[in-house]
Amino acid sequence: MREVAIIGVGLTKFGELWDKSFRQLITEAGTKAILDAGIRGSEIDALYVGSMSPGRFIGQEHVGALVADSSGLTVMHIPATRIESACASGGMALRHAYIAVAAGIHDIVIVGGVEKMTDVVGSEATNILAMAADQEWEAFFGVTFPALYAMIARRHMYEYGTTREQLAMVAVKNHENALLNPNAQFHRKITVEDVINSPPVATPLNLLDCSPISDGAAALVLCPLEKAKEYTDKIVKIAGSGQATDSLALHGREDICTFMSTVRASREAYKQAGIQPKDVDVAEVHDCFTIAEILAIEDLGFVKKGEGGKAVEEGLTARDGEIPVNPSGGLKAKGHPVGATGVAQVAEIVLQLRGEAEKRQIPDARIGLAHNIGGSGASCTVHILEAV
Amino acid sequence: MREVAIIGVGLTKFGELWDKSFRQLITEAGTKAILDAGIRGSEIDALYVGSMSPGRFIGQEHVGALVADSSGLTVMHIPATRIESACASGGMALRHAYIAVAAGIHDIVIVGGVEKMTDVVGSEATNILAMAADQEWEAFFGVTFPALYAMIARRHMYEYGTTREQLAMVAVKNHENALLNPNAQFHRKITVEDVINSPPVATPLNLLDCSPISDGAAALVLCPLEKAKEYTDKIVKIAGSGQATDSLALHGREDICTFMSTVRASREAYKQAGIQPKDVDVAEVHDCFTIAEILAIEDLGFVKKGEGGKAVEEGLTARDGEIPVNPSGGLKAKGHPVGATGVAQVAEIVLQLRGEAEKRQIPDARIGLAHNIGGSGASCTVHILEAV
Repeated sequence: MREVAIIGVGLTKFGELWDKSFRQLITEAGTKAILDAGIRGSEIDALYVGSMSPGRFIGQEHVGALVADSSGLTVMHIPATRIESACASGGMALRHAYIAVAAGIHDIVIVGGVEKMTDVVGSEATNILAMAADQEWEAFFGVTFPALYAMIARRHMYEYGTTREQLAMVAVKNHENALLNPNAQFHRKITVEDVINSPPVATPLNLLDCSPISDGAAALVLCPLEKAKEYTDKIVKIAGSGQATDSLALHGREDICTFMSTVRASREAYKQAGIQPKDVDVAEVHDCFTIAEILAIEDLGFVKKGEGGKAVEEGLTARDGEIPVNPSGGLKAKGHPVGATGVAQVAEIVLQLRGEAEKRQIPDARIGLAHNIGGSGASCTVHILEAV
Repeated sequence: MREVAIIGVGLTKFGELWDKSFRQLITEAGTKAILDAGIRGSEIDALYVGSMSPGRFIGQEHVGALVADSSGLTVMHIPATRIESACASGGMALRHAYIAVAAGIHDIVIVGGVEKMTDVVGSEATNILAMAADQEWEAFFGVTFPALYAMIARRHMYEYGTTREQLAMVAVKNHENALLNPNAQFHRKITVEDVINSPPVATPLNLLDCSPISDGAAALVLCPLEKAKEYTDKIVKIAGSGQATDSLALHGREDICTFMSTVRASREAYKQAGIQPKDVDVAEVHDCFTIAEILAIEDLGFVKKGEGGKAVEEGLTARDGEIPVNPSGGLKAKGHPVGATGVAQVAEIVLQLRGEAEKRQIPDARIGLAHNIGGSGASCTVHILEAV
């Protein structure tokens, strides 16, 4: 297995982008990544794209070929693969691109993540997202994603004394970080009171505990580490990659306050990278709801189980804290175009490790982690990146 | 890169299976493959599943996790990945499972392909399948898949003198082969006249030129070649794997009678296997429409461009011909549950190379090829298998 570097990143703005189509978004992100890498499009050997439900959001499947085609890459007839794993589609696309480069199957690979969610009306987006849960055992009975995470939040509060305010503090922190991210969907400072007084969605989760419906795309260019110096001086390598599953429905788990997929995927990635959770300088984690970030920092091993809420309250995960989490603004405030999220998280970590994260730069970040979840934790990928 | 063997195959019956759900079908195929391989479920390191549009067919995305869950594999939290590439989803899932085993990421991997297509009503299946084409540039203007392939057929007849009867002979051959396949959807001998007199769908293609709407699933168990002898004496290895793309819309191509994705994917697979097209003893090719099989045998290099129709007429592709094509009955008569097809093709080739294809056995088959297409050729995978 070869070591693999990320030599290019590209991001669109995230938001309600009614003037941009699926094709335009992914082509914009891909073009930016190619320019950032300083490669020619003709050097690309393969394309991977993560997207959750273009079939329902825009009436188009076969988006691997679509993205290759709209980027002009089908001229070279390169392989194009779409990977779907609900909101973990992006991270999983990266993982399979990584495996292909590590294996020596391909040299230069582009990975995209994209979702165009705002072209459907009314509650349709909620229905589509519910397809990430177990249709027959959850969604059919009326449970939507906020409801699933609300049950987790309730249990976490009961088991560990996590407070309503601590949940809110996750959103407050991430909105504050997003103020410094020009690509973020929301540029609005909020307070704990704003979150607590926002309209209820599924108690205890209010509107400001939930990530938004977003359009957006992100892209990365990968190559073997030994070739990376031909393209850049600021080399970031993939030091570890982990992927795991859990039961699709929450009721299949021993403990709904622990995402075993996060535990397993992260331990695999830590082992491969030869590091401990405490070695991570900056992390992007899957905060689709405020409770999800608390779970993530516990399951990733940054804090002990049950102490996530307290950690947020004490500022451990703030930009100037011991382990800054979601400096980009996270899914909550940067936006959550589901297929794009996992790729965008890694793009943020690359920028942080290169020292190019502008006003939200975490000083001296050398090791970063990206944590991407599908559904209520049935799928997870974790990637650890290292500045070389 | 390690060499990779296929040590287990499992197939459900294909057809209108109203009494079996998506979960039941894939679990049945997977269980059969596990039993065939003689492994324990707990030995499985990862799962890949190909499925085109469960989001539209059954209202469920995230089917990697779903399949792992319904098979009991989430107990071990193994990685589960869904790959989508329209009707090439199954072949592409196999390719990525193959890469993961070859790279040494995983040892024992199960690959599934599944589609449950008959739970939607009226023309909805046609609408869903049209998402494999270019929605904005083809489907939006009313072009369905039969229409796209009809245009190709017209052009092939014009360019090369391919006859209506030759198209029909593909269906006649494949229906005859399916009579010997207990899992096939159709067990009905048809004649050239039957095809020509069947109701028109998109001239020159009639109903009996088209593969059906089907439910079904297939599964394979992969392991490193060096471990295969621990499980079986009849070892079949993956000698070559190729994947390629072409423009999503037909109008983007120089020549609509050549699928460049087939040409490129097959040349890559031949090169890796170190063989020539003439070395192939048996092939399963993507005959979603009769014209597609004619294109396939040309683009795979079995016959020269333009001579596919004549080759079928002369019996070259019959079970006792020089290069038997679709002994299983093909998509046309075995059935075409789109996500399952690419995996089922490889399962048939494995059975043929093991000498276990019962009454449809091709004598002394040592090298087999499986050719899986997405859309009207925008994606293609080719796998070459060899009895060791």
